[in-house]
Amino acid sequence: MSKTLGIGLAGFGTVGTGVWETLERNGELITSRSEVRAAVKRIAVRDISKPRLKSVPTDLFTPDWEQVVADDTVDIVIELIGGTTTAFDIVAAALQAKKPVVTGNKALLAERGRELFALSREMNTPIYFEAAVAGGIPIIKAVQDSYVGNRIQSMVGVINGTSNYILERMTDAGYGYEEALAEAQQLGYAEADPTLDVNGWDAAHKAILLATLAYGFIIDADKIYVRGIERVRAIDINFAKQLGFVVKLLCVVHEHPDGTIELRTQPSFIPQSHVLSSVNGVFNAVAVRGDTAGESLFYGRGAGKDPTASSVVADIVAACHNKTYDNSHQGFLPYKDTGNIMDIEDTETPYYVRFDVNDEPGVIAKIATALADAGIGVAGTHSPVNAEEPDADFVDMVFQLHTCKFGLLKKTLKNLESLSCVNSRPVVFRIENLG
Amino acid sequence: MSKTLGIGLAGFGTVGTGVWETLERNGELITSRSEVRAAVKRIAVRDISKPRLKSVPTDLFTPDWEQVVADDTVDIVIELIGGTTTAFDIVAAALQAKKPVVTGNKALLAERGRELFALSREMNTPIYFEAAVAGGIPIIKAVQDSYVGNRIQSMVGVINGTSNYILERMTDAGYGYEEALAEAQQLGYAEADPTLDVNGWDAAHKAILLATLAYGFIIDADKIYVRGIERVRAIDINFAKQLGFVVKLLCVVHEHPDGTIELRTQPSFIPQSHVLSSVNGVFNAVAVRGDTAGESLFYGRGAGKDPTASSVVADIVAACHNKTYDNSHQGFLPYKDTGNIMDIEDTETPYYVRFDVNDEPGVIAKIATALADAGIGVAGTHSPVNAEEPDADFVDMVFQLHTCKFGLLKKTLKNLESLSCVNSRPVVFRIENLG
Repeated sequence: MSKTLGIGLAGFGTVGTGVWETLERNGELITSRSEVRAAVKRIAVRDISKPRLKSVPTDLFTPDWEQVVADDTVDIVIELIGGTTTAFDIVAAALQAKKPVVTGNKALLAERGRELFALSREMNTPIYFEAAVAGGIPIIKAVQDSYVGNRIQSMVGVINGTSNYILERMTDAGYGYEEALAEAQQLGYAEADPTLDVNGWDAAHKAILLATLAYGFIIDADKIYVRGIERVRAIDINFAKQLGFVVKLLCVVHEHPDGTIELRTQPSFIPQSHVLSSVNGVFNAVAVRGDTAGESLFYGRGAGKDPTASSVVADIVAACHNKTYDNSHQGFLPYKDTGNIMDIEDTETPYYVRFDVNDEPGVIAKIATALADAGIGVAGTHSPVNAEEPDADFVDMVFQLHTCKFGLLKKTLKNLESLSCVNSRPVVFRIENLG
Repeated sequence: MSKTLGIGLAGFGTVGTGVWETLERNGELITSRSEVRAAVKRIAVRDISKPRLKSVPTDLFTPDWEQVVADDTVDIVIELIGGTTTAFDIVAAALQAKKPVVTGNKALLAERGRELFALSREMNTPIYFEAAVAGGIPIIKAVQDSYVGNRIQSMVGVINGTSNYILERMTDAGYGYEEALAEAQQLGYAEADPTLDVNGWDAAHKAILLATLAYGFIIDADKIYVRGIERVRAIDINFAKQLGFVVKLLCVVHEHPDGTIELRTQPSFIPQSHVLSSVNGVFNAVAVRGDTAGESLFYGRGAGKDPTASSVVADIVAACHNKTYDNSHQGFLPYKDTGNIMDIEDTETPYYVRFDVNDEPGVIAKIATALADAGIGVAGTHSPVNAEEPDADFVDMVFQLHTCKFGLLKKTLKNLESLSCVNSRPVVFRIENLG
């Protein structure tokens, strides 16, 4: 019964190598299970002279991705080069040629999904992207297929391993940000250029994809709120610990009763007792709440050669299955033209706010009065003497605030900044209500 | 594009009602997402006079399941009556009629899967069973589809909510087994007849299905090792706590390097630090380790109306999709005739063993000598004075043992039982190596 389908790879870096090795190691098993036999027929690489895996016949390689897409023996195109320019051209060309695409490129789909999904629809040719979110965790299939009968009420994820590792080391080893980043780079957990990881955008791209799957419309990346971990300081990590929280780079996707979608990525305080607080190192986790299934959690390796290859191979098998039936499109397609993304100023959580103030009489009263005047409730205050400099004439003062709109908080803090006793812009973290 | 498919329900209890409500509540959303429109056309119930959901037209009901299967407007049959006799007839009749089946009946598939999957193959008509394992958690789809490129090295699950609740109450509230069971029944977490839940077989049926999915062969239920929680006593729960463990009813599926499958269900000690130890109440969790994806964990609601309905509805959509393409069989089919299940005597873990001994000189020496003679290493001993009866002439003595074969342990303990200072059969728990 089994039919061999030809695979074309664009890119043969870490993940591409993992895909080859997985097909080589477990190919027979995959065929037994799925009746799919996938054979790599052509591989586009930038530098054809670079030494590669010995088991790959050298005549598979070409420096020209167009040859891969055009190759008659290639039925399915796997895009693994990253970026949003050449990768876009490859995916578009494959769809034009009616060759299903498998990709792990979250930036590409989050930034240019509107064009690519439109082309996918037009050409009736699916794009598979399990590997784009949370590495080896099958969260795309879960949201798309397993929760098809659910209104997705929320998805909360720790889905950037680099940021997670850095925050973990700041928490456990007492490192500063720069020190933790340097260690992560040394260990290979952060790229030489870690920008997209630490500025929150890698996680935000993944959150956009999850939200698009759950709510059916393309979300413009410039409409959402994204903050990274670059300015997280040890002092707040330590306060978090003392107050029973952990700082995590968190993606929050939440459908409000009126259908508005809250979608934001930022370092947040989460309770130490919540299961997401113990997602450490390069692991990822996504907590999903559906109106039918209730709460679920998906946890696993969020990146790396093999976990990502696992998701690519699952997509290859799905693509081969569906390829068998012409005119089928069982991949994802947006089904709504548009939807409402909530203005970040309208989102509500409790907050942690740290003020750097002069150690002078009346400071607490001034801040507390301003908050009270704005109608913002105070859940607690903490103003320890700065342990290292007990006689300093400035002090860090922490306020835990009850739930209020982010816009109101911002406006109120802006006013407080003008007080002479407040030395710098207050530091704000959300305290997440994780049910 | 969307096409309406007719659903026939056999059974309209808790889950059937949940399926109806989900299709009613989220039907439009499901159609938007999947282009599947599923309409319930006929419902078989035992007692047609019993009052049902008002939104269900009464003319859908029939006391005769054969009418449901035979109905021309029914494309897909959902079996939700439970048991292994009439349910078997319904599933077999549906397959004979080339109507795909969706079922949540783990006992049916674990006990009579050999016949049913053979029929499924013969009729080229799939059986879907996401709802059979772990309620709303999409573990079947994960193992079958998402991990198709993985050799599944192990699956360890807490997958019986009733047992889990009872053990949790024994641990946290200090209840005895009978007391905890009574509370679970009062709260609706245990059936009036809880036999299959507390004797381990409900969990074992699920483990059999997971292992069949992962390794491709039908596993005879009488070949596997199953122990329930009925004889778990408070004293061992308390010792577990003192030693840093929690007692959980655990399913362990493990492929050894030689391809032999270890498959067992029993109450086990797991470290308090392991994430499975915090799976409480009616939640389920399955930790999966694949050679490609690495470790993952799936966590969610393991039973109940809505979570189970969520899985049934996902299967309905999958069945409708595949139904669109004739001659396709994208459901599961065994792909190996047979495989090796490891003899339970050959399985190896560390152990906790509690002896009820006379409080007389030389007892520890006798036991320790017998263990040493058998080559079984002792990791630690604990022999507290029985707190309630400090002058009692018997005492509970706990040995933590290093890894050895279960058969060797059994034989050694059998010999020890004959010592006059050992008063009753020693109590054994495995201490699971959860990596």
